[in-house]
Amino acid sequence: MAHAARVRRVRERMDDLGVEVLLLSTGPDLPWLTGYEATPLERLTVLVLGRGGEPVLVVPELEAPRLGDIEDRVPGLTVRPWAETDDPVALVGELGRGARRVAVGDHTWARFVLALQDALPGAAFVPSSTVTAGLRAVKDPAEVDALRAAARAVDAVVVEMRDRPFAGRTEHEVHRELVERMLARGHQEANFAIVASGENGASPHHDPGSRRIGDGDVVVCDFGGRRDLYCSDVTRVYVVGEPPAEVADTWAVLVDAQEAAVRAATVGTPGETVDAAARGVIEAAGHGEHFVHRTGHGIGVEAHEEPYLVSGNTAPIEAGNAFSVEPGIYLPGRFGLRLEDIVVATPSGPERLNSAPRDLAVVG
Amino acid sequence: MAHAARVRRVRERMDDLGVEVLLLSTGPDLPWLTGYEATPLERLTVLVLGRGGEPVLVVPELEAPRLGDIEDRVPGLTVRPWAETDDPVALVGELGRGARRVAVGDHTWARFVLALQDALPGAAFVPSSTVTAGLRAVKDPAEVDALRAAARAVDAVVVEMRDRPFAGRTEHEVHRELVERMLARGHQEANFAIVASGENGASPHHDPGSRRIGDGDVVVCDFGGRRDLYCSDVTRVYVVGEPPAEVADTWAVLVDAQEAAVRAATVGTPGETVDAAARGVIEAAGHGEHFVHRTGHGIGVEAHEEPYLVSGNTAPIEAGNAFSVEPGIYLPGRFGLRLEDIVVATPSGPERLNSAPRDLAVVG
Repeated sequence: MAHAARVRRVRERMDDLGVEVLLLSTGPDLPWLTGYEATPLERLTVLVLGRGGEPVLVVPELEAPRLGDIEDRVPGLTVRPWAETDDPVALVGELGRGARRVAVGDHTWARFVLALQDALPGAAFVPSSTVTAGLRAVKDPAEVDALRAAARAVDAVVVEMRDRPFAGRTEHEVHRELVERMLARGHQEANFAIVASGENGASPHHDPGSRRIGDGDVVVCDFGGRRDLYCSDVTRVYVVGEPPAEVADTWAVLVDAQEAAVRAATVGTPGETVDAAARGVIEAAGHGEHFVHRTGHGIGVEAHEEPYLVSGNTAPIEAGNAFSVEPGIYLPGRFGLRLEDIVVATPSGPERLNSAPRDLAVVG
Repeated sequence: MAHAARVRRVRERMDDLGVEVLLLSTGPDLPWLTGYEATPLERLTVLVLGRGGEPVLVVPELEAPRLGDIEDRVPGLTVRPWAETDDPVALVGELGRGARRVAVGDHTWARFVLALQDALPGAAFVPSSTVTAGLRAVKDPAEVDALRAAARAVDAVVVEMRDRPFAGRTEHEVHRELVERMLARGHQEANFAIVASGENGASPHHDPGSRRIGDGDVVVCDFGGRRDLYCSDVTRVYVVGEPPAEVADTWAVLVDAQEAAVRAATVGTPGETVDAAARGVIEAAGHGEHFVHRTGHGIGVEAHEEPYLVSGNTAPIEAGNAFSVEPGIYLPGRFGLRLEDIVVATPSGPERLNSAPRDLAVVG
């Protein structure tokens, strides 16, 4: 069973690293390990996994009915509900007493980290990713299937949007439509939906606003969410009317750059080499200074995770790594272009999980 | 100007507490203080506010275009963008060098807290709420207006839902409608939408699922989101067909309990006394054991914040405090009921911000 196997591998990794206690709260590690996701609340939820003992889930009494069949998924797990006037930090302190090295979930809120440090005064704290990141980065077949299903859902949205009029609507209106379509296509959450039109497209992380899309506008749509815990993330560009030659030519550069990076993303290749493959094509076309971000990021239960395709990352890609490949070209004051698919590295080569058309979409 | 005044008051509070440096990242303190909200990303954003110097916002280059007119809102603020291969933690370490007492945003991710502790090795860290919670809990008139506008938006959704059929739909389908209606009514985000039907209603934090709502079902709908940074939160109960006498009678107890708590929520009254007011009515009706949570929580830029209406909170309510009043009665295996409005404490008495009808809504 997937979760039991993950707990076993986490324990092995804790042994290797001398981590005696793992504390997981809100964030992606807990659902990856147990299938259960903690609600981000002032009421603390913590999974306490000691090196030797069985896992204990400290959970607000109010949240306990959400746990479902967690005790079946995670053999040996004990649930320790706490009531409104109990002190969950003190409870974790007792469970972890004497630990000298503690790993705490990367996204755990600072207020809880500081309180847990006080409750475990002899312990050195490290982020849980020290233990989990390498394990999470290698997806098993069920995880690849979940990522593929999420990718297909946003691919369907990409295609649906090709038949929609863009002109006359604000970025915010198109943003809302993307969110609604992701939910309608089976996502439980929309994580983000960037709609960056005209000169706004030159800002890669533009917040969709009140700009009204007009004739000739180039519109970058970058959106993703979560479906059954696993994330989607796709970027396509829509143009109102026939694209001018400059836009079409720049897009052709980007398509080549993305293809070069995808082809480079083979098992054993360092992340930075994949980045360099995309960057090389864009530099050769004279747009090096207009590609202002890394080429990609890992994806799984978290929207951005290891491995990162960025200069300086010399770690080789492993079979089962899943990541975005998303070069962009940004012309300040004018327009931006970005093309993004999710790719999984397999022993027989890189496989794209997205299959929506990669041409510039001409819309009304 | 609101933000400049808040920065001034935060500095005063830092002086009182001996906090030399405040570090704010993701979470509610940063937008409350500056109007700017950090994206929860592996790319770190931190506002560094030293006791003496001017505030510096360390921000990923990619996010800098989202800042808008922050330099107008926060006088003296400097923006320090960092590029993809820079080390933002080292930059914050330099800015905070020598600090002995540092307050870090309550929701800052653990991985950044631990890295910042390493970068500021001589400093004791406390949560930023030590500095900000008391200030944030007292809303100024513009904040009360923002909360009122958010409350009106969800009130409109409450009313719209009274004309909708519930029977035959799943909890998840009703959940999605609530989310869509909150967005349509001007919320930028839906934070949550609990739909708990029949026996699921007995779990206060039930996750909406595949249960199909049927004739005679009692359905608890508890939903809220954010509109212009400020949160909404409302709970109403819908019944498919005429409610049986037991449901109607139990609801009448809850209405009385909520009214008693609202009336008790005057300036100077301890939070626990408001809790006791609701609890007393419910206990007198023989349902004490079925009211399994506190009576309410503060609300503002954060969905749950100070003050809490809970046993043990002896702090008196202040004018400008805004909080939920939401007693509930939960009958395991059968049904649940909860009634929730947002209330603001004013010198002339408690004022409800929600005005949607408080009767049981009979739906199809």
